Amino acid sequence: MSELRRDPVVGRWVIIAAERARRPAAFPKTKDAAPPAAGLCPLCPGQEALTPPEIMAYRQHGTPANQPGWTVRVVPNKFPALHIEGDLGREGVGLYDRMNGVGAHEVIIESPEHKLSLADLPPKRIEDVLWAFHDRIVDLKRDLRLRYILIFKNHGAAAGATLEHPHSQLIALPIVPTSVSDEIEGCRAHFQQKERCIYCDIVRQELADGARVVAENPEFLCVTPFAPRFAFETWILPKRHAAYFEESQKNQIELLARILSETLRRQGRVLADPAYNFILHSSPLHEKTGDFYHWHVEIMPKLTEVAGFEWGTGFYINPVAPEEAAAFLREAEV
Amino acid sequence: MSELRRDPVVGRWVIIAAERARRPAAFPKTKDAAPPAAGLCPLCPGQEALTPPEIMAYRQHGTPANQPGWTVRVVPNKFPALHIEGDLGREGVGLYDRMNGVGAHEVIIESPEHKLSLADLPPKRIEDVLWAFHDRIVDLKRDLRLRYILIFKNHGAAAGATLEHPHSQLIALPIVPTSVSDEIEGCRAHFQQKERCIYCDIVRQELADGARVVAENPEFLCVTPFAPRFAFETWILPKRHAAYFEESQKNQIELLARILSETLRRQGRVLADPAYNFILHSSPLHEKTGDFYHWHVEIMPKLTEVAGFEWGTGFYINPVAPEEAAAFLREAEV
Repeated sequence: MSELRRDPVVGRWVIIAAERARRPAAFPKTKDAAPPAAGLCPLCPGQEALTPPEIMAYRQHGTPANQPGWTVRVVPNKFPALHIEGDLGREGVGLYDRMNGVGAHEVIIESPEHKLSLADLPPKRIEDVLWAFHDRIVDLKRDLRLRYILIFKNHGAAAGATLEHPHSQLIALPIVPTSVSDEIEGCRAHFQQKERCIYCDIVRQELADGARVVAENPEFLCVTPFAPRFAFETWILPKRHAAYFEESQKNQIELLARILSETLRRQGRVLADPAYNFILHSSPLHEKTGDFYHWHVEIMPKLTEVAGFEWGTGFYINPVAPEEAAAFLREAEV
Repeated sequence: MSELRRDPVVGRWVIIAAERARRPAAFPKTKDAAPPAAGLCPLCPGQEALTPPEIMAYRQHGTPANQPGWTVRVVPNKFPALHIEGDLGREGVGLYDRMNGVGAHEVIIESPEHKLSLADLPPKRIEDVLWAFHDRIVDLKRDLRLRYILIFKNHGAAAGATLEHPHSQLIALPIVPTSVSDEIEGCRAHFQQKERCIYCDIVRQELADGARVVAENPEFLCVTPFAPRFAFETWILPKRHAAYFEESQKNQIELLARILSETLRRQGRVLADPAYNFILHSSPLHEKTGDFYHWHVEIMPKLTEVAGFEWGTGFYINPVAPEEAAAFLREAEV
């Protein structure tokens, strides 16, 4: 059983998942094995028996579970960092706090095609991936032990991906990660002072300024943020205030798929298919954040060399001004 | 001129150093060029003209500046993220805050020998590296525009190093990085509640428990922390309360060099010379933190595969329990 532990100084929770050391490419340092090829890959159609049984799938009418015929398939992670069974077992150990590693760790397989990346999928199929995020959040939200659902994608080995087949991950946590609670506190402070959502203010200022705008449509805005950690970092923000991704409406999912597709294609064109991380920042599950939090997507390319600095320092040096990055992305032909 | 910009939501300052894109191995993604070999390397003796003129050096009596004869040499970074000249020029841009990239960015060349790593140096020579850190902090502290001095080391390409030659870096900042201010606030809160330093409490609990102790001597303790972000992460803490590294006494520098040498050799033995980051966490320069802050060193190996997860998520999964890591490190033959 894995464990959640809290740093007593900064309050950061980490998962100690000693079981994951059984993964093929883990501790100590080993040469990266080449990821399995199309057809042999555990996320490919025909290999369904290599994953734990599916949690849900969008599939051709009449095809049975755990067989080919799906377009999006969600399965438990085979090497989960957290397990859904059991009590939280919160306890103190002297100064320290710990609890059992209760939660969920799922893999969203974005496409049956091994070689297509999310950027290659037509927007209609990206919509299905977003609906899978939505449906899993709605389902897991019923488990009152869970406080936060982290949905993210690692594309490319430099961004932490161990499999080539296009997939995202979901981690449902009994705590709120520091990266999220810092945002919540910043939003709350702004709202207390001004009675406005700070991300709504950002959307207004970016639209008026224009220098950091990458793309927009009636519901969404894609910008390079004013103080980006990484070169070519982009954010996608709903233009209308909304704290919870899972409360998106049908036409919003459609327009999000379109702007996400466009952003990934622009990024792929300018940076030659970079490794990147995608993270969905949505509100914690049972907190009243509706007035002041604003969900959004952050996309961070991991360019060789550029990313090294902050690894350990917790401090970011970005060699590309966001205005310059936005101009490159805007002008790319896609 | 580079620029410091503040994220309006979480308060994180980043350096936008567009000039750094002129570095040989930068934007967009390029294949990593092999680092220059011994003798041709700009940090090697005989190549002093390839760096900006030295700021200080410990050298054989009578040898002239910027010539061979040194054991430790400090030079400005050739591609600095910050510049020492100029006004801060703090200003608001609508919602956002910015200032000029005023500060210092220096390289501490730890040894004339290209092939020796810090772990290979005898403790007496590590002492000299630590004295160079000390001397640079004491000097830069006189510049009242500066609020924080970050001293860190990237060893190995996976940890962000672009040169093989053993070196550390110093970045002096007109702001306090979030990673430090989060620690300061955690320490302050603990002190307000208990009138004790939280790191002193950690030292006491770890010594009493023993399961996470890697090494100790009369002045220092090396442990794997209770909630480590990375596999085999270690911290070196002074046993006696002290907020400012630069107020260390001579015998403390001697004993720090010894425990640092031992820790790096144990880590090198268990993990086969891993890439790692080393960061000195010391108090901000002009804040009254003496009662509640406690300086320390954090060492984070960057093991292939293991490190990928947190890249973008800001959330850490560690596949090795710190008790297990400490046992491996303790039992290594060095």
